[in-house]
Amino acid sequence: MEKTRIGIINVTGYTGIELARLLYQHPYAELTSVTGRSAAGQKLNIVFPHLAAFDLTIETELGDVDVVFSALPHKESARECAPLVKKGLRVIDISADFRLNNPQDYPTWYSFTHPVPELLKEAVFGLPELYHSQLPSARLVANPGCYSTGAILALAPAVKKGLVEPDIIIDSKSGVSGAGRVLSLGTHYPEANEDTFAYALEGHRHLPEITQELNLLNPKQKHSITFNPHLTPMTRGILSTCYASLLPGKFAGGKKGIEELRQLYSDFYQDKPFVRIADESPHTKQTWGSNFCIIYPTISPQSGKLIVISCIDNLVKGAAGQAIQNMNLMLGLPETAGLQALPVYP
Amino acid sequence: MEKTRIGIINVTGYTGIELARLLYQHPYAELTSVTGRSAAGQKLNIVFPHLAAFDLTIETELGDVDVVFSALPHKESARECAPLVKKGLRVIDISADFRLNNPQDYPTWYSFTHPVPELLKEAVFGLPELYHSQLPSARLVANPGCYSTGAILALAPAVKKGLVEPDIIIDSKSGVSGAGRVLSLGTHYPEANEDTFAYALEGHRHLPEITQELNLLNPKQKHSITFNPHLTPMTRGILSTCYASLLPGKFAGGKKGIEELRQLYSDFYQDKPFVRIADESPHTKQTWGSNFCIIYPTISPQSGKLIVISCIDNLVKGAAGQAIQNMNLMLGLPETAGLQALPVYP
Amino acid sequence: MEKTRIGIINVTGYTGIELARLLYQHPYAELTSVTGRSAAGQKLNIVFPHLAAFDLTIETELGDVDVVFSALPHKESARECAPLVKKGLRVIDISADFRLNNPQDYPTWYSFTHPVPELLKEAVFGLPELYHSQLPSARLVANPGCYSTGAILALAPAVKKGLVEPDIIIDSKSGVSGAGRVLSLGTHYPEANEDTFAYALEGHRHLPEITQELNLLNPKQKHSITFNPHLTPMTRGILSTCYASLLPGKFAGGKKGIEELRQLYSDFYQDKPFVRIADESPHTKQTWGSNFCIIYPTISPQSGKLIVISCIDNLVKGAAGQAIQNMNLMLGLPETAGLQALPVYP
Amino acid sequence: MEKTRIGIINVTGYTGIELARLLYQHPYAELTSVTGRSAAGQKLNIVFPHLAAFDLTIETELGDVDVVFSALPHKESARECAPLVKKGLRVIDISADFRLNNPQDYPTWYSFTHPVPELLKEAVFGLPELYHSQLPSARLVANPGCYSTGAILALAPAVKKGLVEPDIIIDSKSGVSGAGRVLSLGTHYPEANEDTFAYALEGHRHLPEITQELNLLNPKQKHSITFNPHLTPMTRGILSTCYASLLPGKFAGGKKGIEELRQLYSDFYQDKPFVRIADESPHTKQTWGSNFCIIYPTISPQSGKLIVISCIDNLVKGAAGQAIQNMNLMLGLPETAGLQALPVYP
Repeated sequence: MEKTRIGIINVTGYTGIELARLLYQHPYAELTSVTGRSAAGQKLNIVFPHLAAFDLTIETELGDVDVVFSALPHKESARECAPLVKKGLRVIDISADFRLNNPQDYPTWYSFTHPVPELLKEAVFGLPELYHSQLPSARLVANPGCYSTGAILALAPAVKKGLVEPDIIIDSKSGVSGAGRVLSLGTHYPEANEDTFAYALEGHRHLPEITQELNLLNPKQKHSITFNPHLTPMTRGILSTCYASLLPGKFAGGKKGIEELRQLYSDFYQDKPFVRIADESPHTKQTWGSNFCIIYPTISPQSGKLIVISCIDNLVKGAAGQAIQNMNLMLGLPETAGLQALPVYP
Repeated sequence: MEKTRIGIINVTGYTGIELARLLYQHPYAELTSVTGRSAAGQKLNIVFPHLAAFDLTIETELGDVDVVFSALPHKESARECAPLVKKGLRVIDISADFRLNNPQDYPTWYSFTHPVPELLKEAVFGLPELYHSQLPSARLVANPGCYSTGAILALAPAVKKGLVEPDIIIDSKSGVSGAGRVLSLGTHYPEANEDTFAYALEGHRHLPEITQELNLLNPKQKHSITFNPHLTPMTRGILSTCYASLLPGKFAGGKKGIEELRQLYSDFYQDKPFVRIADESPHTKQTWGSNFCIIYPTISPQSGKLIVISCIDNLVKGAAGQAIQNMNLMLGLPETAGLQALPVYP
Repeated sequence: MEKTRIGIINVTGYTGIELARLLYQHPYAELTSVTGRSAAGQKLNIVFPHLAAFDLTIETELGDVDVVFSALPHKESARECAPLVKKGLRVIDISADFRLNNPQDYPTWYSFTHPVPELLKEAVFGLPELYHSQLPSARLVANPGCYSTGAILALAPAVKKGLVEPDIIIDSKSGVSGAGRVLSLGTHYPEANEDTFAYALEGHRHLPEITQELNLLNPKQKHSITFNPHLTPMTRGILSTCYASLLPGKFAGGKKGIEELRQLYSDFYQDKPFVRIADESPHTKQTWGSNFCIIYPTISPQSGKLIVISCIDNLVKGAAGQAIQNMNLMLGLPETAGLQALPVYP
Repeated sequence: MEKTRIGIINVTGYTGIELARLLYQHPYAELTSVTGRSAAGQKLNIVFPHLAAFDLTIETELGDVDVVFSALPHKESARECAPLVKKGLRVIDISADFRLNNPQDYPTWYSFTHPVPELLKEAVFGLPELYHSQLPSARLVANPGCYSTGAILALAPAVKKGLVEPDIIIDSKSGVSGAGRVLSLGTHYPEANEDTFAYALEGHRHLPEITQELNLLNPKQKHSITFNPHLTPMTRGILSTCYASLLPGKFAGGKKGIEELRQLYSDFYQDKPFVRIADESPHTKQTWGSNFCIIYPTISPQSGKLIVISCIDNLVKGAAGQAIQNMNLMLGLPETAGLQALPVYP
């Protein structure tokens, strides 16, 4: 069987090289073309020594491929992806440019007017656990934000089943690679090491996509989400701690209620190969380098609050791995193809 | 002027050696006696090379001193401290044994019956920003827990001023030294490095002291606290992110309301030398090695929730530094004596 | 084709679980039996959540298998492996018990008398780049130490080709996982984080195997090795910096000489899939999670000294990955089977 | 007594702010003026929140001061310092511009022609342990490089006493703050975390000052130094491991020889308040935040090589602390004034 030819636009960021790393082991797909501006003309294996196994040159234009991953920044990505989709290529956009259904959100949250609003209707939100059935026919997939992935997966069962009040708090702790490969003082090693801080308190850009998806899961209530991301001194990983008030009468009291809750979560994700409901508070390290999302739902014995914790590797399930999972479903391949590596631990 | 003679019971933990480090520069106090079981008979400067400047032997019994810091584990500490207090020594207990006013809380939260419940009434909760006036005459001070310090300081103005509903969420991120010097798999370097996780979801022992103090600050309402601590891969630092619903009509909308809030916090702590109200989201590293607590209160523009973030060094303001601050006030010394070192940055 | 059945004795250390992680993706081998004392009777996927994909119970005795990896501590391993070899199983011992050819070295370096000295003659030193031809028929393979792997691979070309004087310095920097999963104060997170130190200056146990192998590579000279390991605050990785004096007349001066040296190294390892000769100073992170060894040989322009730097992941090429590479060659499988994952970067 | 007025040129780098941090506690000196280009016009306490205790504006020109610290980059520093020295100010230059005695070394190592070569003769190399007597009258002090400080202090006794052959290897491991506050990919957190590598193998700029000083310590032999710096994932600290061949007949064999060696080192540094000769292999963390240099000299039992390990905090004894130590001696103050804080541990 011939392998599907894959292209990556803007391979030189962390998501781009993570796509390359993961695709190297994919049984049905082969990375055949990569582009990038800063390093155009250089060999991929020279710029990124961990990709020594590849014999590809970073080009300015994509070659002939069947599927395209765009790892461009927002605004640019929409402009580059639109003609490719129209040309008949299947496109997975890692940027935010096709995640929000409402074109008005782009000026508000991203300070630009969407150049191809008509594609927003067609684009599938690429969270395979929720949009499984729409992916096989999708031409354009909007890969969710890293925070959004962890938060929505943590909350989807509770929201979908109508268990909680609409006022939800999401407190996320991310590794530094989530800030990308572009240099900044906040990600300079001596500043970021041995430090934890909250940022984007005035409103993080993943908030509208989280809100949009939770509202779609339970259209009967309008969710008010307080989303607060933090940076912690590690390279990979996002742990999201979600808090919500349970509606009365949903669960038994005490441990029995917690068991019912866990069963409900297990049932919700029962056929999802990358989601695991844990019996104990999970660690980001338990997902390191893998496409797994571990979810731990519980109820505080003191306050009665619902607490749901999720862990992902922000560069895999939060970006490149999920993009490949989407591709697998778009192409009718096994959902786990190329993604079977276990987490690297410790 | 003769220096006050200081003794430390159980110097060999992280709080004990941090007390020694800080006392080395104290202008009015001198560490003259230290005890410890595991290392009894050994020289302090040999067991802890960073304390090379000391010429003290770790003894099994305290020598003649004026003030005692007990860094014993809970239950043992109460037993050791009680006779010292009765003998007329002034005692600062770092353990939890005198923090809770209600003796019934000890069997519930610490699995032992309090041996000297009568001392609970007398003990002052050693958060100097709240109990300033009671410290000069105190014979026994209960140094607060590290998480409690950060959380109570973050919430005290809002609670005391009656700004918020009683349902409060505290999401804390701590460095690993908070778990102490006793070995465990969770604090083994390859396990704790590059990892973040939540723990004690069934109820952390600092919860009752946080609840007790918030209830005392606003006795009109009974607070329901969801306190959720996390471990992050750094040695020192606690960042607590606190969430509460503002009662209606307390502040103007938008940025003006945030300014009013910040002013209220600044006024509340205006004469407190170790509390600083920040204009920007603070970093734990900005307190590293120092006794400062940085507090950042804000209002989410999207959800309208009150968010208050506090940062401390868990071993200084969260333990040894606060203990010395308490001692200073007990002895009528300047509150900042021995605690003037700036944070070590980066 | 039926998969080879694999057993791991003492799976509960870091090498044991790394073997399990890597074997999960092996196309021709299947982990079917694991033993361990501390966790006997428990499920592998419960004790190690990152191994959730396995459905194996940790037993006290091995089941029926074709190949055994022993991850026991030294002394115990020899006792357990000997009967298995005699029974006809093919055994790869991760411990040091069959690495040293001279039985007298065991009392000297490991404080025990070797129980089966006759097996020392038969055991193959499992560095596949040097012992490739002896592995297919081997019944018993002694997997080299992690430091030894990096140091010998760095020095083998220079020593074998007679380029250097026998007085060699090896300065190694290791991540903390090399110290294993057993708790100790030195590997307690708050102690090991933000710290670098040298240890075993009185003689590290990997020294005799390094010396033995270098002497075998060039029996004309007796090497005097100064081997000095350091611990650095990272989980995985060993960087070894090796210094030796070049014999006169071996290379041209200046950059030409460095190119000649690099060519010699490239030729030496030309058909070795896991060794890469780098053009730039390599990073341990470029091997993270993979079986690669990156080697960078150069000549100091100032002092004329030969400097060779090697990088490995201590748990993969330094332990579990190399063990699987040995197994592949023992079984006539492709050398890279199950080991094709690229390094996880960043 | 009036405090000496201190100015810092280019306060905005890590050495500049470390000077400010340390000067804050100096009993006889007061920071009264700071300059900086990038942040000119801003308040020092706003740009650097850990310096909240200062009420200074970052200016473009120094105000009236008695002593100047220049934390400018090389080449610029010489140009700025020269007129200040000629004006009668006492100047401590943190850059390399006055460290090398031979003006010819500047084009070779720093690619510029020295603008004031006449000042090179006058400048004192600011390693107080070696140049103690010249500092009181010095107008211009060249603060040594961070690596140079650790390496020269480690080797000075052995070289001065003529114990070793001239062929010396220095393998140094540095924390990332040594690379400064300027952004680069190599110091981007996700790249530098969990990584160790060697750099500047073609010749690091601290090599000529190390060679110069060792040659001055023992002019009878011309030293051939192989200096190889590495970056390790920590913020602060340099550990230098130095290797040399002992000349025959200098010490007894075995442990007795090691004791003689240690005694010789202790005698050499007996009245030096910041140098401590350790009995055990030291940790960089034991110097964290302090001006101490810990030195551990030993002899390899296997190879007979001299090994000397030194640890410093690169920003304190390796830069700002040493600069203040120099200032103290220039001004006739106690050598330890303002530098008495113990290391922060853990």
